[in-house]
Amino acid sequence: MANPIDFYFDFSSPYGYLASTRIEELAAKHGRTVVWHPHLLGAVFKVTGQQPLTTIPLKGSYTERDLARSARLLNVPFKLPTKFPVGATAASRAFYWLAKRDPALAKMLARALYHAYFAEDRDISSPEVTINVAARLGVDPAELGQALNDPAVREKLRVEVDAAIARGVFGSPYLIVDGEPFWGSDRLDQVEKWLETGGW
Amino acid sequence: MANPIDFYFDFSSPYGYLASTRIEELAAKHGRTVVWHPHLLGAVFKVTGQQPLTTIPLKGSYTERDLARSARLLNVPFKLPTKFPVGATAASRAFYWLAKRDPALAKMLARALYHAYFAEDRDISSPEVTINVAARLGVDPAELGQALNDPAVREKLRVEVDAAIARGVFGSPYLIVDGEPFWGSDRLDQVEKWLETGGW
Repeated sequence: MANPIDFYFDFSSPYGYLASTRIEELAAKHGRTVVWHPHLLGAVFKVTGQQPLTTIPLKGSYTERDLARSARLLNVPFKLPTKFPVGATAASRAFYWLAKRDPALAKMLARALYHAYFAEDRDISSPEVTINVAARLGVDPAELGQALNDPAVREKLRVEVDAAIARGVFGSPYLIVDGEPFWGSDRLDQVEKWLETGGW
Repeated sequence: MANPIDFYFDFSSPYGYLASTRIEELAAKHGRTVVWHPHLLGAVFKVTGQQPLTTIPLKGSYTERDLARSARLLNVPFKLPTKFPVGATAASRAFYWLAKRDPALAKMLARALYHAYFAEDRDISSPEVTINVAARLGVDPAELGQALNDPAVREKLRVEVDAAIARGVFGSPYLIVDGEPFWGSDRLDQVEKWLETGGW
């Protein structure tokens, strides 16, 4: 049985969103599964001293253009959200809580949250929005609402974020294939070649 | 006559080096020429608040791995230099001085300097090394030695660096194709598609 691909991402990361639209199909083509790992770039940036791309002089306006262009190339709906970036704790907690019960549904939720944020400009930092998006997939709003404040769920996210950082994850998307790390949606072509060839 | 492609790079930039090995062939395939613009990331970083990739926690060690992997994929010799990064003023001045006399030879010099630094681990921040690399291409060492301290040559580099920043160039490589900016050696595939299609 081939190793799964580890897919690290932040729900507030537009390049993570772009990668999320391709990774499952790419993996399946090569007989791999994908484990989705939401993490929080805010925690990562405390370690690396980095800051959100769009806030960096010169780089910021380029990034907005590059995102729109890259999304058009992938034929993926994209609009930089009105409120950007946002903290993705609610979305991430919802994911990990649901993943424990139904991993496949949790991936559907992740895609739905990404779509809500980057295609529909809905502010997924709001627990209400996260709950609403999940409800459309049949998740009970009251149950999820409780889970978002459950200390065990909060702790689960903290552990996952710490584990990601301990593994060297410094960005989004960040993928690990058979121990080899790949950062950025623009590395998916290398990921594909790595899966095809076993590495070079 | 189609517009030339503007290719901005820093001689100390490994991803600039990778792009330099592909850009002329890629452009020629689409009937384009390339104007090479050495600039100085040190000056750019003062504007953007950024720092060299390899000095950033977590990102640094990934970058070293990604560079080696990307170079192997392109079949390009690469070794992160012992002294890295370095200031590329001597190399850049040599380029602009030579470009005024013989643009084709200046590109050959640029490639030779990149090769000296990233394949042979020679410290091109040293004027002596730059002069030596140029001498192998038939450039008179005494003449170039004088040029490196010529106030007009120094001023030319300053003007070029300022012009790059004014144009929004914040990294290396950074390419502009018919007004469209592309940052990173991993955007050359988009550059190629843009040349093929006229944009999307």
